[in-house]
Amino acid sequence: MKNTVYLDNSSTTMPCKSAIDGINNALNENWGNPSSLHILGMNAENCISDAREKIAEKLSCRQDEIYFTSCGTEGNNTAIFGAAYQRKKLGKRIVTTSIEHPSVLEAMKRLESEGFDVVYIKPQPNGSVSQEDLISAINGETVLVSIMLVNNETGAFQPVKLAAEIIKKNNAPALLHCDAVQAFGKTDIKVYDLGVDMLTVSAHKIHGPKGIGALFVKKSVTVRPLIVGGGQERGFRSGTESVPLIMGFSGALSELPDIKPSFEKMQALKNALTEKIEKSGIAEINSPYDGLPYIVNISLLGYRSETVLHFLESKDIYVSSGSACAKGKGSHVLNEMGLSRERTDSAIRVSFSRFNSMEDVDKLFEAIIDARNSLRRSN
Amino acid sequence: MKNTVYLDNSSTTMPCKSAIDGINNALNENWGNPSSLHILGMNAENCISDAREKIAEKLSCRQDEIYFTSCGTEGNNTAIFGAAYQRKKLGKRIVTTSIEHPSVLEAMKRLESEGFDVVYIKPQPNGSVSQEDLISAINGETVLVSIMLVNNETGAFQPVKLAAEIIKKNNAPALLHCDAVQAFGKTDIKVYDLGVDMLTVSAHKIHGPKGIGALFVKKSVTVRPLIVGGGQERGFRSGTESVPLIMGFSGALSELPDIKPSFEKMQALKNALTEKIEKSGIAEINSPYDGLPYIVNISLLGYRSETVLHFLESKDIYVSSGSACAKGKGSHVLNEMGLSRERTDSAIRVSFSRFNSMEDVDKLFEAIIDARNSLRRSN
Repeated sequence: MKNTVYLDNSSTTMPCKSAIDGINNALNENWGNPSSLHILGMNAENCISDAREKIAEKLSCRQDEIYFTSCGTEGNNTAIFGAAYQRKKLGKRIVTTSIEHPSVLEAMKRLESEGFDVVYIKPQPNGSVSQEDLISAINGETVLVSIMLVNNETGAFQPVKLAAEIIKKNNAPALLHCDAVQAFGKTDIKVYDLGVDMLTVSAHKIHGPKGIGALFVKKSVTVRPLIVGGGQERGFRSGTESVPLIMGFSGALSELPDIKPSFEKMQALKNALTEKIEKSGIAEINSPYDGLPYIVNISLLGYRSETVLHFLESKDIYVSSGSACAKGKGSHVLNEMGLSRERTDSAIRVSFSRFNSMEDVDKLFEAIIDARNSLRRSN
Repeated sequence: MKNTVYLDNSSTTMPCKSAIDGINNALNENWGNPSSLHILGMNAENCISDAREKIAEKLSCRQDEIYFTSCGTEGNNTAIFGAAYQRKKLGKRIVTTSIEHPSVLEAMKRLESEGFDVVYIKPQPNGSVSQEDLISAINGETVLVSIMLVNNETGAFQPVKLAAEIIKKNNAPALLHCDAVQAFGKTDIKVYDLGVDMLTVSAHKIHGPKGIGALFVKKSVTVRPLIVGGGQERGFRSGTESVPLIMGFSGALSELPDIKPSFEKMQALKNALTEKIEKSGIAEINSPYDGLPYIVNISLLGYRSETVLHFLESKDIYVSSGSACAKGKGSHVLNEMGLSRERTDSAIRVSFSRFNSMEDVDKLFEAIIDARNSLRRSN
């Protein structure tokens, strides 16, 4: 992978050394069942506690507010279904945005089919939902609000803290959930300051393994478990804990650099890329200038996303068309932002990690120029 | 771990070399997101396909009938909730046994609270439910039957195939689900012959990693997904696939020895242990003579399970009291079999794997004798 320029880090990241070491420690040494009463079980249980502590520290919350899940999708489903079913006697109104991840939107669709009224707030052209729309959507009958912290396709920040304030002001019975999968480890998250009741994170976007995530659930809040059984995770998430992946998650966290210098490094990469693009006029930039700098969404007008993606791939440069989860379908996020069909159809998402460098940006930009010169326009 | 005698393999197993190798391959080489359109994604997707093929082969079914889950518990929940919600318009009756794993029993409790009528068949004193009870429980209004193939505490086989025949004979609209977590890899399972619509397996009971399982769902059957989102696993189980654990599962399967010679080896271990115990009169045997030989449940009357467990632990011998999932609570399985309180309170579960030897059985037996001579009776 020496010459590979991997710029698809919002789809998934390469596991880092500490993550791999953590996993192998669990596989070779701490492989007991955490529920076993003997020392092999207790050792495994201690590994989980250590990891839980690390995550709690990153989110500035209590350890007993962190529950391990098998992925961000499970976390989002658990929070949304759990809150809706728990609160359904208090009201039927749910507020979310139209640019959430499919694991939120599909859960909402199911709740609609079961009689909930779901309000989907559209974003402004800059990719964020507006203060006004949020204020008018959240009323006193609202039982759940789910808003992502950072959009996965554009990097646009969403007004989660504002949602918390509106809920409070309106005295709504709503729980506030936040999908922070793309934000975690990349921007400072203090869950109490943010005012959320539940918040979803995942390991594989921060150089941890795929198959493990965590859900913050505020101590004072009760939501119905999604998966029931042996009562692991203090009754909230049954099933034998994946000690290897939990230790891998922990390893990834221990290797995670400080938020601020990383943010600045990514901002420099983003600025360099967007300046080159703007100066050359070669493409449109779909990400807001003040978004999370790890994500830059651009459109090479007249060239279909997949065509550009595969052209870049031929040069050992990896990006995505929209999000990985959409797997080739048009981007609902860019559509909702009101971008033209031409722009949506030609969008590619560039997503950085700490392992990227200015050289990668240069290579990408050269390859984009090359793409425009080599590829045939689709229209 | 050289002198360790690990006899708690039904709680979890030590990951084998091929499982660990598979995981590390995914972490180091095939770490792309299977949903990504570029080659890194396709490579990861191919790894998943290979693993799916291996599992399908073990169950003698089609590849597209296998769905990966995060554990046996998720598999059982998915099957039970999915079938019940899908079929609720056809009837409210569900049949199961009173000795299922908590991931089945707790799901049933939730369905009861939502208006389903759940019939829990009690086992006979030998640990298996009877043909007569099954016949009288499954009627024409039954929409779901869930029966484990092998009980996790005693090893008693359950009449799953008979349940399929009764459903067919009664022309019931019931789907048949089987929790085969303890049976998989240890006894021959041909899902079509067995007549099940859904069947749950897990990796960590067969020297694979914790955090991955699979659910067989017959092609002709539709059940509602438990976890929704990006549409992975052909829409049935959303969430980025845990390629490392899927490859670990696959590795464990490739190292799994043939069923028959393994079964015979375990039978020899079980016979040796039960003969020593019967000859000495030191303990009661709670497992049926014709159960899965990997599990031997015994009661050292007058000595509490946990006390014996910790005494054995002091000699580097590891067993469990009941199942790991029950974590110290009294065994509902032995209670339901009608065993005395004294016998239930003193039960320990010995569970073998291919890495155990006759020497382990000898050490265990000596240690049990020692326990009786050293420990104070609890009554």
